Amino acid sequence: MQINKKYYHTIWVKENSSSVIEIIDQRYLPFEFRVVELKTLKDAFVAIKEMLVRGAPLIGVTAAYGMYLGMLDLKKSENIDQEIRKIGDYLESSRPTAVNLRYAVELIIEKTKSVKDINQKISVALQTANELKEKEIENCRLIGENGLSLIEKISKAKKGDTVNILTHCNAGWLACVDYGTATAPIYLAHKKGIKLHVWVDETRPRNQGARLTAFELGQEGIDHTIIADNTGGLLMQKGMVDLVIVGSDRTSANGDVANKIGTYLKALAAHDNNIPFYVALPLSTIDFNMTDGVKQIPIEQRDENEVRFIDGWLDNKINNVRIVPENSKAANYGFDVTPAKYVTALITEKGVCKANKQDIEKLK
Amino acid sequence: MQINKKYYHTIWVKENSSSVIEIIDQRYLPFEFRVVELKTLKDAFVAIKEMLVRGAPLIGVTAAYGMYLGMLDLKKSENIDQEIRKIGDYLESSRPTAVNLRYAVELIIEKTKSVKDINQKISVALQTANELKEKEIENCRLIGENGLSLIEKISKAKKGDTVNILTHCNAGWLACVDYGTATAPIYLAHKKGIKLHVWVDETRPRNQGARLTAFELGQEGIDHTIIADNTGGLLMQKGMVDLVIVGSDRTSANGDVANKIGTYLKALAAHDNNIPFYVALPLSTIDFNMTDGVKQIPIEQRDENEVRFIDGWLDNKINNVRIVPENSKAANYGFDVTPAKYVTALITEKGVCKANKQDIEKLK
Repeated sequence: MQINKKYYHTIWVKENSSSVIEIIDQRYLPFEFRVVELKTLKDAFVAIKEMLVRGAPLIGVTAAYGMYLGMLDLKKSENIDQEIRKIGDYLESSRPTAVNLRYAVELIIEKTKSVKDINQKISVALQTANELKEKEIENCRLIGENGLSLIEKISKAKKGDTVNILTHCNAGWLACVDYGTATAPIYLAHKKGIKLHVWVDETRPRNQGARLTAFELGQEGIDHTIIADNTGGLLMQKGMVDLVIVGSDRTSANGDVANKIGTYLKALAAHDNNIPFYVALPLSTIDFNMTDGVKQIPIEQRDENEVRFIDGWLDNKINNVRIVPENSKAANYGFDVTPAKYVTALITEKGVCKANKQDIEKLK
Repeated sequence: MQINKKYYHTIWVKENSSSVIEIIDQRYLPFEFRVVELKTLKDAFVAIKEMLVRGAPLIGVTAAYGMYLGMLDLKKSENIDQEIRKIGDYLESSRPTAVNLRYAVELIIEKTKSVKDINQKISVALQTANELKEKEIENCRLIGENGLSLIEKISKAKKGDTVNILTHCNAGWLACVDYGTATAPIYLAHKKGIKLHVWVDETRPRNQGARLTAFELGQEGIDHTIIADNTGGLLMQKGMVDLVIVGSDRTSANGDVANKIGTYLKALAAHDNNIPFYVALPLSTIDFNMTDGVKQIPIEQRDENEVRFIDGWLDNKINNVRIVPENSKAANYGFDVTPAKYVTALITEKGVCKANKQDIEKLK
């Protein structure tokens, strides 16, 4: 998608320099747009660990390119596959709970095993990373196509009046490679000329909505309004929201949806006001072995200082200011789980389905 | 209640100087504790308008003292009651929608009418303001007593284990004169030695929870944890909340509760998890003429920059930093309305009652 009127992916091989990978350093958005070069395995590790890149699909693709960068520095050796394994273990330790990271690492290890020569292995690694990237883009595009029809239906029912969509957190292209998941239907609808407006939940404490989703939508020229996370219930009561679309970090086989903390509250409000609540997700985030997401999905606890302090722009720089009493502690839970009964449907790359075991199983 | 181990009210007549009123300038809390002198009518007007004081009961008491300060400057005149009326009109214009403000002004006008001499009028005004202040304190104390029994019951059911209470915004003593409304049962329970812990909703966008409620509780030595507004649903799902207590800005005769934006979302989550949801309020905030709060209570829209910028502490001063993209707009709705069906009970100075027309009527 666009930044400053130019098309970008979130990660790419540098032009005329195939041993350098470039990414957007997302820690500075929306205040500063910085592109960073990854030249070594360590660079890729740091980019993932320090959250220069975030979002499951993007982390996966970054790890794949990280494997490639790591292999560029390998010498010919008897134990080349063992060396590659070590690179993978190192990368996996950057964010231990990220499923896509592990998937990408194992994929590269698997693919490079079948060729002998180190140069060939390197070339296979790059090709595999490129293919993974293309697959992530295509998955998001397909999620977009499938979600588009839902928005079109509402637009028709409103006789072309503005469709109001509420989203939480950033399940946008910045979390993926292009299009995003929750945002993909929005981008395709906008491209098709459907009139829409997006309510962007700020998404405390890390403010991914206010910082990233609002930035993305603004750069694409899509009408949007940032709201405090407290606001969605009122808007739904007042008929100011036509549908909700969010992403998912992990969905259980029965359709319970783990997503950014606060998602559950919006699902309850949507349910209370008969507003459709959609979850857009690639099938790779469905855990088919988990039968009860509400009980079984573990909830990450993060540093309390993400609640106690906040980044903001002042005097041409980012300042980290304290927003609570000096001696008050805070709790910082990363996710909550929305029970399947509050999910109208899942939007996947293979189609739209109800959030229940049988219907999800069919997409497998 | 206490600040720095000393007992305070939010407003008081200065010791040895009855023509000066002192207040806490709440705009700087929790970062700085500043006491400000009000010496003139204008001072009182500014204190209300610029929100040095906030909270319906405190605004009312400040207006009453403001009438007194205004009358101190009146000369003997033929039209003294007309002059007093003018003072009242001026004060009422400071925050046009505040019901308690109007009530306090009219009360002083009414009481001072019956005495002739200007000095007598002044003395009646001061006495009336003092009485109003005492009445606000007593109402809060009674709300505390009535709510205390609900907390005691839960504490007993948990065999003395910590009672976890969630609250939203600041319905604390800083919004009143002492005790607060939602916090009054908490303070009395703590005084009685009941083990408790309070989850404090940050309460975006003005952060009254993180700034004021957390400050109050901390100063009283009550165990508390600040959470993003997104968090309450998860905590309730996980059994980490025993009851919710919030305040109310306005409650309709049928029990619909207007309170700080986001209250409705917490009520939905409490309902979904069978957790009692209590609203603590003085009877003066019940609008007996309003039959459907959800439809009829108007929702204040405030400046979008309260969402786009935030105050925080850095380099020994308060800094106002931007937290959204430069060109993104925001919406800022002040309140939402929780339908009566999600309210377990109202806690008032006259007792606890169900949130329905008949039971509310009985308290009148």
